[in-house]
Amino acid sequence: MAVGLTEPEVLLAISGVRLASVAAGIKKNKSNDLVLIELAEGSHCAAVFTRNKFCAAPVILAREHLAKTNPRYLLINAGNANAGTGKQGMLDAVRSCQSVAQHGQCDDNQVLPFSTGVIGQNLPVDRIENALPQAFSQLAENNWLAAGRGIMTTDTRLKGISRQFEIGGHTITITGVSKGAGMIQPNMATMLSYIATDAAIEQPLLQQCLQDAVAISFNSITVDSDTSTNDACVLMATGRAGNDIISSKDADYQAFSQAVQQVCLYLAQAVIRDAEGATKFITLEVNTAASIEDARQVAYTVAHSPLVKTALFASDPNWGRILAAVGRSGVEFDLDKIQIYLDDVCIVSNGGRDAVYTEEQGQRVMKQSEILIRIDLNNGDQQARIWTSDLSYDYVKINAEYRS
Amino acid sequence: MAVGLTEPEVLLAISGVRLASVAAGIKKNKSNDLVLIELAEGSHCAAVFTRNKFCAAPVILAREHLAKTNPRYLLINAGNANAGTGKQGMLDAVRSCQSVAQHGQCDDNQVLPFSTGVIGQNLPVDRIENALPQAFSQLAENNWLAAGRGIMTTDTRLKGISRQFEIGGHTITITGVSKGAGMIQPNMATMLSYIATDAAIEQPLLQQCLQDAVAISFNSITVDSDTSTNDACVLMATGRAGNDIISSKDADYQAFSQAVQQVCLYLAQAVIRDAEGATKFITLEVNTAASIEDARQVAYTVAHSPLVKTALFASDPNWGRILAAVGRSGVEFDLDKIQIYLDDVCIVSNGGRDAVYTEEQGQRVMKQSEILIRIDLNNGDQQARIWTSDLSYDYVKINAEYRS
Repeated sequence: MAVGLTEPEVLLAISGVRLASVAAGIKKNKSNDLVLIELAEGSHCAAVFTRNKFCAAPVILAREHLAKTNPRYLLINAGNANAGTGKQGMLDAVRSCQSVAQHGQCDDNQVLPFSTGVIGQNLPVDRIENALPQAFSQLAENNWLAAGRGIMTTDTRLKGISRQFEIGGHTITITGVSKGAGMIQPNMATMLSYIATDAAIEQPLLQQCLQDAVAISFNSITVDSDTSTNDACVLMATGRAGNDIISSKDADYQAFSQAVQQVCLYLAQAVIRDAEGATKFITLEVNTAASIEDARQVAYTVAHSPLVKTALFASDPNWGRILAAVGRSGVEFDLDKIQIYLDDVCIVSNGGRDAVYTEEQGQRVMKQSEILIRIDLNNGDQQARIWTSDLSYDYVKINAEYRS
Repeated sequence: MAVGLTEPEVLLAISGVRLASVAAGIKKNKSNDLVLIELAEGSHCAAVFTRNKFCAAPVILAREHLAKTNPRYLLINAGNANAGTGKQGMLDAVRSCQSVAQHGQCDDNQVLPFSTGVIGQNLPVDRIENALPQAFSQLAENNWLAAGRGIMTTDTRLKGISRQFEIGGHTITITGVSKGAGMIQPNMATMLSYIATDAAIEQPLLQQCLQDAVAISFNSITVDSDTSTNDACVLMATGRAGNDIISSKDADYQAFSQAVQQVCLYLAQAVIRDAEGATKFITLEVNTAASIEDARQVAYTVAHSPLVKTALFASDPNWGRILAAVGRSGVEFDLDKIQIYLDDVCIVSNGGRDAVYTEEQGQRVMKQSEILIRIDLNNGDQQARIWTSDLSYDYVKINAEYRS
């Protein structure tokens, strides 16, 4: 089940972006597993990638290609991560790009490869090559829903969103899709996310905009503390909306940046709502901290606590586990000043259980499917907010049976 | 179930240590939940406590009392942690010590209080006081088994061990018990552990010996990364064995220290073998690291990964998850040099899956109930070893239903 997440019925086309989704036979269940995205000439592209040292071959290659030139094609496969595959993995990623470049009549460097799925198995490049003619023939601007579905692995819901706003009388459209449900504590980006816009904007600003948005969205979520080997988030801009090219941090940039942040935040939260086995959507908000780092450390310590997560699953107001996690976070604070809330219910003040707290109040909040855990350190003026899920039987079941 | 852990049939008495275990009615199931330990005059006592900032009232008080004088009594209750209970919690801990001191005709400061159980509920001191007469009347040297059982909470097995060795022709005996199965990543000590010896040794050396032993035993285990509010490990020495008082780091100290380490290691590993829901006992060994800190960071990152733990539960040789966890540990290493083994089977070398690895080999090891995960960083000459358990349906079940 996914917590409060419905699939989008419509995703708006982006002028200059064509997509295709086909079944290459990489996944065992024969569903679509190969997505091709084509960008019009002159498009800019920004991206952030996983910081996992064992990053996958396609991550290394995509980073290299992106540093050299403007991409024309993105090739994404699900069902196989092409990670932990050593030299053969890199050869396979290179060959995939070469094949796309031949079909698309562009330079090999203009193809960005992405993979997601099981780690440590060689990529079946033959199957990918066999499926490319069909993929190229199906490229169309209105294929965002199919593309979003084509990159899914353990996801139960398609995650996508479109936003429109105006810059100087020109309508700007942003559409994005993402996948991810487990191995989620992105460190630069979530598993895979592709966002495109028709806005005209210079590349360095596009990259800056993406990094700022990712910091408060994809880099502020966790399912299980496991940073993937394949995380990538790409923001593409075709420049066809007709707006004056955004070239400085002016009002136009602010409007654009705000819209990108909203899209990233929606997609990142969608990953948590669809987290493996999730029955609860949890917001951790840490206020009045000495630093953002302190606030995030407290928030992540609580979010990663298996005991907090199982109590959330059980709808058990066993708030002592939240207190214990805050206490072991390593962050300095004054025991007598800290306050912890479950939504509007104060559970901890003056170094222990709040004087007027009752089990009934805690139970009322814990039964909700969406819960805010708010921690006021009263130790400064910094703040952080992250999102997580609970730990259920189904999380264990999904991950114990993933490869079987 | 507990992995490869049988209960001790005998625990040797320590001359000068008397114990009692009674049912005070703190636990709902009416089993024994109050343990009293009496130390003969002149005994020394060393202890380490949790570093959780929200440490329980009894932890604060025990630390204070220990700094002032030699203890005569330890009072330990299960079923209620007296943590997160604010000022009332401290008043309750103080009152418990006063009551014991009255019965035992000693100073309040000579009583060390310990609690374990649910966090955030007030300690029922009346029930403890009502049970004290019975506890005092039952004090006896041969009550170690009963004491070990009296401090259990979610433990399924009594954990205890005795060791004997000689110093200068005098037989030295060490007996220890511990409890703990969840909220286990001790940071100074495990949940609760009480070890006594009849050796004669000066207090500063006793403390040094305990800290050294705890570093490589209780501080090297993790079930769920949750450091408890109540962790405590106490080493008591009555000095009745007749040996010359150990007063320097000589050969006698080495013999004593080695025996204490063996006892601590056995008890710490017993906690992991009896970890909540555990079906596997996992040793993480990280070799050839640049520093012990690096080695421990890699080991703990793998040990805490929910995806690694669920794969272990499923006996699934999904070693890519181990690789991904090592990669996100934040420790620097050379991808081409690192080697990862499941027992004797090399799974990763040259930056990816080992050339001769087969799924059958991995499957053979993963089916075992005891598994060594060995990671050779080939980046230095330091080493660390820690122990952990898998993540099963039963872990979720136990912790979702703990208070119900």
